[in-house]
Amino acid sequence: MRLEALRSAVLEANLELVRRGLILYTFGNASGIDRETGLVAIKPSGVPYEKLSPADMVVTDLNGKIVEGSLRPSSDLATHLLLYRSFPAIGGVVHTHSEFATAWAQAGREIPAYGTTHADYFYGPVPVTNELNAEEVGGDYVLNTGHAIVRRFEDLDPMAVPAVLVAGHAPFCWGATPEAAAHNAVVLEAVARMAYYTATLNAACPGVAQHLLDRHYFRKHGANKTYGQERN
Amino acid sequence: MRLEALRSAVLEANLELVRRGLILYTFGNASGIDRETGLVAIKPSGVPYEKLSPADMVVTDLNGKIVEGSLRPSSDLATHLLLYRSFPAIGGVVHTHSEFATAWAQAGREIPAYGTTHADYFYGPVPVTNELNAEEVGGDYVLNTGHAIVRRFEDLDPMAVPAVLVAGHAPFCWGATPEAAAHNAVVLEAVARMAYYTATLNAACPGVAQHLLDRHYFRKHGANKTYGQERN
Amino acid sequence: MRLEALRSAVLEANLELVRRGLILYTFGNASGIDRETGLVAIKPSGVPYEKLSPADMVVTDLNGKIVEGSLRPSSDLATHLLLYRSFPAIGGVVHTHSEFATAWAQAGREIPAYGTTHADYFYGPVPVTNELNAEEVGGDYVLNTGHAIVRRFEDLDPMAVPAVLVAGHAPFCWGATPEAAAHNAVVLEAVARMAYYTATLNAACPGVAQHLLDRHYFRKHGANKTYGQERN
Amino acid sequence: MRLEALRSAVLEANLELVRRGLILYTFGNASGIDRETGLVAIKPSGVPYEKLSPADMVVTDLNGKIVEGSLRPSSDLATHLLLYRSFPAIGGVVHTHSEFATAWAQAGREIPAYGTTHADYFYGPVPVTNELNAEEVGGDYVLNTGHAIVRRFEDLDPMAVPAVLVAGHAPFCWGATPEAAAHNAVVLEAVARMAYYTATLNAACPGVAQHLLDRHYFRKHGANKTYGQERN
Repeated sequence: MRLEALRSAVLEANLELVRRGLILYTFGNASGIDRETGLVAIKPSGVPYEKLSPADMVVTDLNGKIVEGSLRPSSDLATHLLLYRSFPAIGGVVHTHSEFATAWAQAGREIPAYGTTHADYFYGPVPVTNELNAEEVGGDYVLNTGHAIVRRFEDLDPMAVPAVLVAGHAPFCWGATPEAAAHNAVVLEAVARMAYYTATLNAACPGVAQHLLDRHYFRKHGANKTYGQERN
Repeated sequence: MRLEALRSAVLEANLELVRRGLILYTFGNASGIDRETGLVAIKPSGVPYEKLSPADMVVTDLNGKIVEGSLRPSSDLATHLLLYRSFPAIGGVVHTHSEFATAWAQAGREIPAYGTTHADYFYGPVPVTNELNAEEVGGDYVLNTGHAIVRRFEDLDPMAVPAVLVAGHAPFCWGATPEAAAHNAVVLEAVARMAYYTATLNAACPGVAQHLLDRHYFRKHGANKTYGQERN
Repeated sequence: MRLEALRSAVLEANLELVRRGLILYTFGNASGIDRETGLVAIKPSGVPYEKLSPADMVVTDLNGKIVEGSLRPSSDLATHLLLYRSFPAIGGVVHTHSEFATAWAQAGREIPAYGTTHADYFYGPVPVTNELNAEEVGGDYVLNTGHAIVRRFEDLDPMAVPAVLVAGHAPFCWGATPEAAAHNAVVLEAVARMAYYTATLNAACPGVAQHLLDRHYFRKHGANKTYGQERN
Repeated sequence: MRLEALRSAVLEANLELVRRGLILYTFGNASGIDRETGLVAIKPSGVPYEKLSPADMVVTDLNGKIVEGSLRPSSDLATHLLLYRSFPAIGGVVHTHSEFATAWAQAGREIPAYGTTHADYFYGPVPVTNELNAEEVGGDYVLNTGHAIVRRFEDLDPMAVPAVLVAGHAPFCWGATPEAAAHNAVVLEAVARMAYYTATLNAACPGVAQHLLDRHYFRKHGANKTYGQERN
């Protein structure tokens, strides 16, 4: 029953990416984890989104052993799993090649915190990983992509900055749930698009002051948040 | 009965922003005022647009005391109220994070009057506020956002330039009614987009001459307007 | 009966602009002429497109005297009429504020013939008018807009280059019929968009060679055209 | 029967281009070949896409002699045929004026391999042909366009780089089937769009390292591919 809910949530996160225009053909994937059992549900590899049902989600343990499902899991599985093993607070992971976030990743530039839309979701710039070297790419490339991300977050809180740009590749996003991870991926793309226009209008733009970054981020996060209908 | 009409008009203004693609998720809000009673209706905070009904609009007085409605008002309420208190001619206020207007706000650049589309709606550049300092942000931030806007309009007529860019944040727009405020927000985004392309095609573009600005603005506004079906 | 067909064709040209995304709210207008009677049908001013029926089209003679219709004609009527009086081969005129064509007009730059898409429709750059001076704007502004266009075409064949950018304003397009004028306006916007990307990728781009311009233009136009199903 | 399947596949490839937004009006065309009989099916010239049925596809032999169909074939037929004669591995050809790929073609710039999205489909930059000279344009222009493409691929494997930019014109794409050719055209446009944003964010961007290009390309192609549900 719990696994059924996880598969449904993972399918729904995948479909949200399609509805928001972040996906071309079968590019991209979303997964979710049940922290009690350590089971992960992920989109199968290369299957058209419009044909997916919850039962098509592939279930694996944290080492990638398939527990349920007859399809092959997303080819990015090993990156997802390393993120779950390394970032204990996250419950969902999303990978897309959404256009503007990917452009920043290809350009090898972090996305500066240019405004409050950014600050509402990302507490500081969205960082870029190092480029993987020939050995890392020639070896267990998908796992090493995860290692590059984890290294980049050595001094960062993944829940405060729930996204990264893999250099020369594209973004990975995460969140407390698959739904939150997909939501963050959609917002990242909007933030990346506005940052592109900002950077090309004002190449010297310093970005928001620290006090504004603090204000907006903590307005939506943490014990004292004031946004939305839930009262703390 | 009058309050019912106000709530409907405010809901409709919010939905117009969605229909025109200015809204991602729950970003943005529209409000309206009944000048006779001084009551303001505004979108509730963080509720998905597709679930909103007129009865969900929150009604407050000009000091923010909730008069009707069971939901929390938009977190930007204090900015809206200060604009209503400071600009007696306005009847509606809209705040969005629409992409191009937000990019100009993030870049800290006013939108020059580059052409007649602009001149039809905004009698001069769309101005940018000062950045709020740490004290303003740390204090009553939402109210201080309103103060920054009002200060910027010390020498400007808010009905002649019915929009502003809050530095590092996003636009606020207004108008005689909630419908007009939403209409102005939609046009501002189109003007901001065309201005972006103009500025990147010709960084030295001087913008329209004063006589052309005059001609277009007064073609659509004031006692001698010649546009549309109403005769003066 | 003939007038009925003209009004229908003019309405259809207006709606094509909407379907192709060239129109925001009520910006823009299309007209057509019956050369035998000299009667012109044009969109009424400021009426939402979704409410228009053929009977709403306003019919005037070539001097602007209203012959049929209870609504006020488009505020740009005088420009349309001057184009009909000056360019005897044209049967339809379209004015829009489509985004990329307007950006080139605002930037005061002609659209270079960067490629064969351009050459298929426009035999040379799409020219820009001079800016109107204070006297022209202060006088019969709409008529003077037409004069600025006609002056710009002193040495150009309006049927070989069926579009112009009015400096600081937006494009006017035309063609043998209202349908052709609308078609040209849609293509102009696509050409302007691709030209924007081309100019920002390669500021020194020389554009197509004369022999390629010739080849593509005459492939679709004139006695020896080879495109489409009609045989000459 | 086999010809019927070919015509259906060619129609479907043409419609996929429309669904993905690569086509304005009647710009663009797709074809396919049956290698056993050497028969080619191609879209007719200048017919609106929404009116096309499989029977409208024109069937010719490899020299352009019409074998079936009452309409005139696409005006680009001679280019398609030369590609089929020169690249024995291809089974489908697509030509569009999609906006970003066309902008790179107009700018005369190859599309660098800036990231893994590119590397998944194109094993190296997407090349640009030489400009055709006056003689080539004045002679059998459409055939000479094909010759310019074939010359550009003298040292390139057309199956490893299934696209080209014709200088000052637009892209041609191909693949093992009409479906694959259309798929490649859609991906090329997405890659061209992201490359545009990348190049304008970082003019000095070196693009992906050779080892990353290898890894991604061979992940999706060849005997050791690991993407999708098919096992090698």
